[in-house]
Amino acid sequence: MRIAQIAPLYESVPPKLYGGTERVVAYLTEELVNQGHDVTLFASGDSVTHARLIAISPRALRLSNHVDPLAYHILQLQEVFERADEFDILHFHTDYLHFPFSYSNNLTTITTLHGRVDIDDLIPIYQKFHDMPVVSISDAQRDPLPMANWVGTVYHGLPLDLYKKGEGKGNYVSFIGRISPEKRVDRAIEIARQANIEIKIAAKIDKVDQEYYEKNIRHLFRLPHVEFLGEIGEDEKAMLLANARALLFPIDWREPFGMVTIESLACGTPVIAYNRGSVPEIITHGKTGYVVENITEAVKALRNINQIDRDECRASFETRFSATIMAKNYLSLYEKLLHPEKKELAFISANE
Amino acid sequence: MRIAQIAPLYESVPPKLYGGTERVVAYLTEELVNQGHDVTLFASGDSVTHARLIAISPRALRLSNHVDPLAYHILQLQEVFERADEFDILHFHTDYLHFPFSYSNNLTTITTLHGRVDIDDLIPIYQKFHDMPVVSISDAQRDPLPMANWVGTVYHGLPLDLYKKGEGKGNYVSFIGRISPEKRVDRAIEIARQANIEIKIAAKIDKVDQEYYEKNIRHLFRLPHVEFLGEIGEDEKAMLLANARALLFPIDWREPFGMVTIESLACGTPVIAYNRGSVPEIITHGKTGYVVENITEAVKALRNINQIDRDECRASFETRFSATIMAKNYLSLYEKLLHPEKKELAFISANE
Repeated sequence: MRIAQIAPLYESVPPKLYGGTERVVAYLTEELVNQGHDVTLFASGDSVTHARLIAISPRALRLSNHVDPLAYHILQLQEVFERADEFDILHFHTDYLHFPFSYSNNLTTITTLHGRVDIDDLIPIYQKFHDMPVVSISDAQRDPLPMANWVGTVYHGLPLDLYKKGEGKGNYVSFIGRISPEKRVDRAIEIARQANIEIKIAAKIDKVDQEYYEKNIRHLFRLPHVEFLGEIGEDEKAMLLANARALLFPIDWREPFGMVTIESLACGTPVIAYNRGSVPEIITHGKTGYVVENITEAVKALRNINQIDRDECRASFETRFSATIMAKNYLSLYEKLLHPEKKELAFISANE
Repeated sequence: MRIAQIAPLYESVPPKLYGGTERVVAYLTEELVNQGHDVTLFASGDSVTHARLIAISPRALRLSNHVDPLAYHILQLQEVFERADEFDILHFHTDYLHFPFSYSNNLTTITTLHGRVDIDDLIPIYQKFHDMPVVSISDAQRDPLPMANWVGTVYHGLPLDLYKKGEGKGNYVSFIGRISPEKRVDRAIEIARQANIEIKIAAKIDKVDQEYYEKNIRHLFRLPHVEFLGEIGEDEKAMLLANARALLFPIDWREPFGMVTIESLACGTPVIAYNRGSVPEIITHGKTGYVVENITEAVKALRNINQIDRDECRASFETRFSATIMAKNYLSLYEKLLHPEKKELAFISANE
């Protein structure tokens, strides 16, 4: 299949540092190439890919000081549309920006919504474009925009060999993420304290969260059971997760997909997560971790963590959250859009 | 002619408070309606116009807390394009956002660039869209983007009766604008001090300029010859200008068009302005004010201010910067775009 992947330009594909969306696009693109498809990636010029790269900005926009990043994303649309007839399908990862264009040109597109969609400003545009095919990264993500044309949910996936199963022999739990009010590292610290276990925290502190950190978190990092590692690299993260007894994920928002939860499963490490957003879709309660409602339940879950089989965690990752599965799921959505008549047939036979 | 005016949605048309672009769109729209054209205005729903209003957002976006103002501007594009065949010409005031769309649909558009264009990020997009017709608001504005398809310069205009000529009998000069490093209110204060005349300052202090104000300006406002009025309304501004001996406009940046300079001329008040950006196009040196290079020249100009005829200032406003002239100039550009063959004829006869 001739596939265009259209990535945001803020980070390279894959990103040098952070950049959730660009990372997923990288995994998907490489996997589609591996499976023999003809893939073109529209991304920043410092991207590294086995697909054909159409460079838009010379470098990732977030690395340098750009006053007007939108200009490059509009330029990107033009570069895509000039080549539209070279592709069977255009897969956008840049939200609604292309909608009026794709609509009027009757292009076959699919758009993965990577960010939060619980923003009132989005309602009018998804009402207007209620037939533009969009993909959710979890079923839970859809709730605020029921009028959108959700054609499927495809969970993010990681390459099978990116993380290896560890034995969780370190006598600690871990927390990985940003230090921000909705991630609730304070809860994680309290859970570990009540369960009487050490917690290792790997997290970046964004500028916007500096005040929150100073006021609410800094003093907690001085507690004797807490070790703060700051920002860590991929290798350190793999080690941290592989040796952890569990990952704590006590979020306080409807996170559409927590990448770190599947990284943890890839390491065989169970996840103790609050029941918010996509959590109950990713974690199978009692099998790959525990889905909890409060600190008491989380502490109890942590005490029972040895009842979770680390092999089962890894197996869940391999069967549900590998890049291979992700690519396969996207390909079947591409097929569905390109051959809607097949979908109808399938629908009929399912009703028979 | 069937004309669409596409305004930004940040402020209503006209704006309740500030909002340079929306204000110009309002004057242009009303004038085109007055001249008998069939005008449709795409703007925020709280806009007030004699044209047909297509409301995009219910209210101006800047008034309420909008996380994602871009969503409304993309929605606006769709609303415009669905009706594109109802118009002879689409006049955009929203920068490059529509370019890929208008380009692929072969629409007759014209785009006034209201903001600063000396931003490196804009170069690739204007290279790509080097044949999209754009209008400068001064010749000087064009310098950083020589590759754009500049089809004309149209100066901003004000309704003839918005300001009345005053006699400049107040023994003061005035400064009107934001308190920001590039507006150089400090220079204005120093010019007035050396010329031994009072200065009345009407200015808003944006959040982003608060630190600059505290550090560099606040102490100057305590000088005996300085009166700081804060933000003022339209009526107060008219009075302030009408009674001023001169307007000081000692800018330190390539301002593409200084609205306050033509407001001043409309009041018959000469302008002493630094030779930057559009200044020498707007002010006729020795006739409607003085174009100066430094404080010494500005002080000298101020001493000679009685040599400027206030009737000549008002006349310059009426013949060059009225909304009527502005609309006339835009109409001739619309004609040129709709009938390019006429342009060639005119070009031939001009060479004969």
